[in-house]
Amino acid sequence: MRTSTAATAARPRWRERLHEVIFEADTPAGRFFDLALLVAIALSVAAVLLESVAAIREQYGPTLRIVEWALTIGFTVEYVLRLVAVDRPWRYAVSFYGIIDLLAILPTYLALLLPVTQPFMVIRGIRLLRVFRVLKAAQFLREAELLVTALRASRRKITVFLGGILTVALIMGTLMYVVEGEAHGFTSIPRSLYWAIVTMTTVGYGDIAPRTPLGQLLAAALMILGYSIIAVPTGIVSAELMQAARPVSRQACPACGAEGHDVDAAHCKYCGARL
Amino acid sequence: MRTSTAATAARPRWRERLHEVIFEADTPAGRFFDLALLVAIALSVAAVLLESVAAIREQYGPTLRIVEWALTIGFTVEYVLRLVAVDRPWRYAVSFYGIIDLLAILPTYLALLLPVTQPFMVIRGIRLLRVFRVLKAAQFLREAELLVTALRASRRKITVFLGGILTVALIMGTLMYVVEGEAHGFTSIPRSLYWAIVTMTTVGYGDIAPRTPLGQLLAAALMILGYSIIAVPTGIVSAELMQAARPVSRQACPACGAEGHDVDAAHCKYCGARL
Amino acid sequence: MRTSTAATAARPRWRERLHEVIFEADTPAGRFFDLALLVAIALSVAAVLLESVAAIREQYGPTLRIVEWALTIGFTVEYVLRLVAVDRPWRYAVSFYGIIDLLAILPTYLALLLPVTQPFMVIRGIRLLRVFRVLKAAQFLREAELLVTALRASRRKITVFLGGILTVALIMGTLMYVVEGEAHGFTSIPRSLYWAIVTMTTVGYGDIAPRTPLGQLLAAALMILGYSIIAVPTGIVSAELMQAARPVSRQACPACGAEGHDVDAAHCKYCGARL
Amino acid sequence: MRTSTAATAARPRWRERLHEVIFEADTPAGRFFDLALLVAIALSVAAVLLESVAAIREQYGPTLRIVEWALTIGFTVEYVLRLVAVDRPWRYAVSFYGIIDLLAILPTYLALLLPVTQPFMVIRGIRLLRVFRVLKAAQFLREAELLVTALRASRRKITVFLGGILTVALIMGTLMYVVEGEAHGFTSIPRSLYWAIVTMTTVGYGDIAPRTPLGQLLAAALMILGYSIIAVPTGIVSAELMQAARPVSRQACPACGAEGHDVDAAHCKYCGARL
Repeated sequence: MRTSTAATAARPRWRERLHEVIFEADTPAGRFFDLALLVAIALSVAAVLLESVAAIREQYGPTLRIVEWALTIGFTVEYVLRLVAVDRPWRYAVSFYGIIDLLAILPTYLALLLPVTQPFMVIRGIRLLRVFRVLKAAQFLREAELLVTALRASRRKITVFLGGILTVALIMGTLMYVVEGEAHGFTSIPRSLYWAIVTMTTVGYGDIAPRTPLGQLLAAALMILGYSIIAVPTGIVSAELMQAARPVSRQACPACGAEGHDVDAAHCKYCGARL
Repeated sequence: MRTSTAATAARPRWRERLHEVIFEADTPAGRFFDLALLVAIALSVAAVLLESVAAIREQYGPTLRIVEWALTIGFTVEYVLRLVAVDRPWRYAVSFYGIIDLLAILPTYLALLLPVTQPFMVIRGIRLLRVFRVLKAAQFLREAELLVTALRASRRKITVFLGGILTVALIMGTLMYVVEGEAHGFTSIPRSLYWAIVTMTTVGYGDIAPRTPLGQLLAAALMILGYSIIAVPTGIVSAELMQAARPVSRQACPACGAEGHDVDAAHCKYCGARL
Repeated sequence: MRTSTAATAARPRWRERLHEVIFEADTPAGRFFDLALLVAIALSVAAVLLESVAAIREQYGPTLRIVEWALTIGFTVEYVLRLVAVDRPWRYAVSFYGIIDLLAILPTYLALLLPVTQPFMVIRGIRLLRVFRVLKAAQFLREAELLVTALRASRRKITVFLGGILTVALIMGTLMYVVEGEAHGFTSIPRSLYWAIVTMTTVGYGDIAPRTPLGQLLAAALMILGYSIIAVPTGIVSAELMQAARPVSRQACPACGAEGHDVDAAHCKYCGARL
Repeated sequence: MRTSTAATAARPRWRERLHEVIFEADTPAGRFFDLALLVAIALSVAAVLLESVAAIREQYGPTLRIVEWALTIGFTVEYVLRLVAVDRPWRYAVSFYGIIDLLAILPTYLALLLPVTQPFMVIRGIRLLRVFRVLKAAQFLREAELLVTALRASRRKITVFLGGILTVALIMGTLMYVVEGEAHGFTSIPRSLYWAIVTMTTVGYGDIAPRTPLGQLLAAALMILGYSIIAVPTGIVSAELMQAARPVSRQACPACGAEGHDVDAAHCKYCGARL
């Protein structure tokens, strides 16, 4: 995400400095900028949360609106500075973090531009999009990449797993719709499917629950299936992480032919010959 | 599932071509056929789901019926073509995918053939069997076989695990029936057994919940047991998948013929001969 | 559980034969006996379950009582034959399976012996003890021993884990009792403790749920803790099973000193020398 | 936690003896002291629990108060003796166990000192702090340290995992607030966030549940995500525990001093010198 300093050679002095502060965390100014940004993100998300509580909205509404506008202007300045600091502004604008940065400021302006005749729901929905600002904090979670890599490696297996779960949920949902019927809350197959997922993932709200003995028998089978099947993705990720954690070189010893050396080995651990 | 091209030598040119399109995914026509089939399956399942929603059924009933019949005729043509394309139609008809293909078209015709005097429930139940068409998509999940293999290898352990769960659920269910009694919703042992499974698998609907202190104590013990015991199948599958991932050389000993050597082995571990 | 045939040398012919049929599964008669026993256990448990359903009890009560008495007499005969067949009857009688066998027949006789003046609850409780007959089937689950061994190896770690869970549940339960108070269903600390276990194990009945914002915050923290902490026993059992699955000999090669040989290896896999 | 006997050389005979009894478990007196302490802790926690049950409080209130005061005086004596027995009382007083020991006695005295005009809630809250005495038992769980070490090693990954969960919960909570609205129980974003955590961790109280089809679709997606994502911490801890279990030789290379060799290594993998 951070361009190498080698690429900044041709920039004027002030743009180089700006880039350093905004995109790099190695200098005191860069570290301070990152910290300020984190605080602003936290404040902004807190403002969205608090504004949604009726009691707080009524009492502190104007204060929250001021905080909201101050943060929006701050994020706007940050967005413009980022565009100025990089060599290819367009490429930044369409990158993952560029879009997140735009999404962080757009809702406040949009809510202003919309005619008053718009239904309140639409305006509120747009304004609440500001909560996506929390994704701006993702840049600080470098370790997340490791986990994402492990998940991506198991992607196909996980897709198959999800396909299997949905197939089972669909079939069980249809059976329950027939068995329990609309009188017991299973009013349609999509709703039965929702029930099947609630049950299979062991969430179990209890808003819909089987009432006939046959329905309870089927439900019990689905629960045990869901309870046992969780072992599959867990096993996949465990095996994947174990595999990733223990890199073994594929190089055989030229002297004795032994294999299974660590990737950092310079000599054969059995005969001492140079690898 | 796909017969080798060697076996198709004696077929007429058109049957060979048909087989290629229907059973193989290597040619553009074959890929298009597979894609069309997937879309048809998705449409068909969506139709079953939508038809079960009362509001949609009332408004779009006739449209859904037309879609339904078009798809049924399409699947019927596909089924006949599959029977024509293979060398041994009967063997295909009784295979897993052959039965699935038949089940995908039968319900629509059956619902038509049944006398109107049949109760509505039976007709609806039969028509909803069409949802099993989703299993036709299983052919596209080749990776599923890997998972199925891992599960099959742990079959006996999983059976024992299920047996253990059911035994615990039965005993706890009976105890709760005695402790809580019929007044608190535990109206019979089968119902208490259902509660025990709901609790042990951590689903927890809350439609039946213990109300006496002793019942809550027993329930808490059952929850902690269920919560801890999930580790067992997870551990089994993890270990199984790790085992499968551990590389074992396919080389047989030239002297004694033994197999299962480590990849780093230079000598047979049973007779000491050089590999 | 099965005494070796060597120990039966001094027994008369018929007792030897009896022992073979009852305790061994290698002969056709032994296999038939085992099968008949399994069927009888299943029938017996089914009878207990069905009798607890009010509607069935009223209609088929006498039939169930006949089945019940036939099975009890059968199990009594089996119990006596087992005592006769073994060389040390007393030792069998106090063994795990001996006690189970006794528990399987005792409740029916006890219920008969109790005076009619006893409250119905006590009699019913004793009669339901018959459900423990299901434990007689445990003998057929030889694989269970493997799992039990793995669990026993992790015993101390699991105890610590349970101690930790109970400590967290106790502290969170007390906090919630103070925060939510008796008005919101948290009527005492034991009840709050029950809620904490329901929540931490992700069962979540919903019969007691926090209603104040602070209570919901604490509850959310407890949920995430419980959700994450499940990883600990799973990891323990996984690691234990992996360890058990891959036995590696501790023997070093006398010629080249290499270690890590499989336990069944007769020759060093690196240099071929005899181990 | 236990100072070495070498450090006690300068102490008078009786202090040495006292230290032995209180801090060490090797002598009969020390073992008896530990056992008495455990019983006192269990009694004390039981008293707090029982006192919170209204029915018991009314009937056995005076008895519980006597038990409470006897235990508080006992713990006070123990606390003073511990301060006397160690060489640096202040260091003990501010250590983890020192603070726990102080917290175990403080609440009872505090409740006495507070003016009667204090609201009852505050007094009750302070008195219930006595439940923290359960942490005094933590000293007996030496194995806990192993688990804590494994958890600490995965600390950063677990933080990232929690950050990811909270981000997903925040975004889904906001979406549900917009989709379901205040009429269906999602009265504010903090409350929706609470719902999202209840759902994602598969607790599923059912006190708040989606009622619109779109809300149920989003909820189903969140459930499946939460159900699958549990695999991540489990995999992390499994891999971490496996890693800890994998034996690494403690031998340093005599030539270059490098460590971390496999147990079967005969030569240093970095410089090739004989180990």
